[in-house]
Amino acid sequence: MLSAHRRLFLCEFSRTTRRAFSCSSVSRAPGRVIFSGIQPTGVPHLGNYLGALSNWVKLQKTAAPEDQLYFSIVGWHALTLPQDPDTLATSRRDLLATLLAIGLDPKRSILFHQDHNQVHTELAWILSCITPIGKLRRMTTWKTRLAASRNANDESEVDESLLNAGLFTYPVLQAADILAYRATHVPVGEDQTQHLELCRDLADIFNRTFASSTPLFNLPSQLNTTSRRILSLRDPTSKMSKSSPDVQSRILLTDTAAQIKTKIRSAVTDSIPGITYDPATRPGTSNLLTILAACTDEDVQDVARRYEGKGHGHLKADVAEAVEQMIKYPRAEFERIRLETAFLEEVAQSGAERAKERSETTMQQVRERLGLRR
Amino acid sequence: MLSAHRRLFLCEFSRTTRRAFSCSSVSRAPGRVIFSGIQPTGVPHLGNYLGALSNWVKLQKTAAPEDQLYFSIVGWHALTLPQDPDTLATSRRDLLATLLAIGLDPKRSILFHQDHNQVHTELAWILSCITPIGKLRRMTTWKTRLAASRNANDESEVDESLLNAGLFTYPVLQAADILAYRATHVPVGEDQTQHLELCRDLADIFNRTFASSTPLFNLPSQLNTTSRRILSLRDPTSKMSKSSPDVQSRILLTDTAAQIKTKIRSAVTDSIPGITYDPATRPGTSNLLTILAACTDEDVQDVARRYEGKGHGHLKADVAEAVEQMIKYPRAEFERIRLETAFLEEVAQSGAERAKERSETTMQQVRERLGLRR
Repeated sequence: MLSAHRRLFLCEFSRTTRRAFSCSSVSRAPGRVIFSGIQPTGVPHLGNYLGALSNWVKLQKTAAPEDQLYFSIVGWHALTLPQDPDTLATSRRDLLATLLAIGLDPKRSILFHQDHNQVHTELAWILSCITPIGKLRRMTTWKTRLAASRNANDESEVDESLLNAGLFTYPVLQAADILAYRATHVPVGEDQTQHLELCRDLADIFNRTFASSTPLFNLPSQLNTTSRRILSLRDPTSKMSKSSPDVQSRILLTDTAAQIKTKIRSAVTDSIPGITYDPATRPGTSNLLTILAACTDEDVQDVARRYEGKGHGHLKADVAEAVEQMIKYPRAEFERIRLETAFLEEVAQSGAERAKERSETTMQQVRERLGLRR
Repeated sequence: MLSAHRRLFLCEFSRTTRRAFSCSSVSRAPGRVIFSGIQPTGVPHLGNYLGALSNWVKLQKTAAPEDQLYFSIVGWHALTLPQDPDTLATSRRDLLATLLAIGLDPKRSILFHQDHNQVHTELAWILSCITPIGKLRRMTTWKTRLAASRNANDESEVDESLLNAGLFTYPVLQAADILAYRATHVPVGEDQTQHLELCRDLADIFNRTFASSTPLFNLPSQLNTTSRRILSLRDPTSKMSKSSPDVQSRILLTDTAAQIKTKIRSAVTDSIPGITYDPATRPGTSNLLTILAACTDEDVQDVARRYEGKGHGHLKADVAEAVEQMIKYPRAEFERIRLETAFLEEVAQSGAERAKERSETTMQQVRERLGLRR
């Protein structure tokens, strides 16, 4: 799996390199610029880890030396939903500790708080002036909010007037997050494909309107990483989620071995004898196989074959053990690092400085091209 | 007129002072904080000058020593409509020269470019997360844009999907412009009353949500100044406007005496004998009387009585002369100051620094209360 993964990166990298060489005669390949973000809304769970964060670590391991990696804790996005200020403050700090605990190296990757770099909101405003309202209306995330706001099945029943403007425009802030660093690659899940498409559209509109002879923005590509879609342990038809009221439905990266065992043991499966991987008819059982395969970095079908003649009890015991083995080191690291407040502040500050450096270079060009010169 | 004007200010000031004394035991009254902005979209015309800019100068003259005056050239707002970058760059610089030419003193008033202070977009994003979409939909300016976008009479015919998101959300940026300085007073025309009401709403929502024990934001009051509504010289049923294709419809602050004379001479009036002030039936004639009264700082009815038995030719000659007398000094000053590029840059930089100083103090508290701590 890993080697296929690495091949994918190499292939993409060489495409970038070729393009760079064909455009200019610089002797050093510029490398990829990778951007990704995560909201600080509580301790990450297994779904966040296997779906996104573990990929960031893989990206760091497999990146070429000339690649730049920007990983951001996007506090401004969290404000689109109501937040308790003290909880948000703790989540922000804890999430940075988590990124370090899972193996992101602040010397190699640029780890920073979005809200430490005002360029994000400046560029978001500018991009909002070239974003047709219609594009935002078509975002599936917005349509889902609309539907959820009244728990309505029929979209025409929904009253959007009470939803906040940030919920409507946050895909523009996301585009700014990415374009501020002139990112070339963005590792996001499939549910974010439409937002990345908007980002590419806005980059293209900006280039055509203000930079026709020398395009400023890259049109960033989606980095299809081996992200796993981890489902709720209590309702395996929906994703594992921070917002579910049932805490038994998710495993947090801070859970103890005993908590993990209890949660996995009570995971909803089915009464069909034997183990098979069949997400459509056996979502609970298949979810456990997905988790196990992710923990051991194997193909899920290979794992399923090993358990063919075994029972759910056997599978659950092995899943709990595999999860514990995977998270025990990051969990201990997290508990150690979260207490090192001076170090965390230093990492955040240095990350912000490096993030500002590149994004300020972008913004100088943006302002110049718009006529907003210093 | 001027003395009534000054009385108004004193009355408002004493209210502020009373409140300040009742809230705390500080020995020095905090004074008013006045904020206003103007878009850099070409050389200001007589309507801009008599409607807004001349009031800024009066405010500067009549303000108490402890009052703070923030006057901003709001380049980010200009981006909501298509702009030619070179023209925008020139307009921005020329507008600063104009503010100095008409008598604003950068030592007394804080003159600055909005786009030099990223706090405006940072706070705009934060406020957008507490702004219900419905409030923005109800803005008259938005409804007008919708109607104009298809030149439709029936609102239901209008397709808003092509309008940009900035046009929809700019009242939130305006609120941020004002609240970043915790302004107490905002001199705006009647067409901006609804936007100021939104600003007060957002300040109130923020205070109640994040600052219930110690409100952070003032609810700014509208400063009703003696602004004159100057109409088009060619179509006196609409406002004098930068965007009218007929350049004869407006007098620019850079027009020569000869240009002023020609434009006033060809101003549309009527064929009723004698001069009376009657905006409903005699809009053209009344507009000329309004301009004359504004130039000489008299009551328009007093002016009208002086011309009762006279003809349009006589009135027009006097209007042209009065306009010339009023603008000749600022015009010469403008031509001198616009060439002093180093001085202009110094003024802009120092204004930005002072603007950042106060707004950064606001933002530290905003971030702290939201849980976005440094």
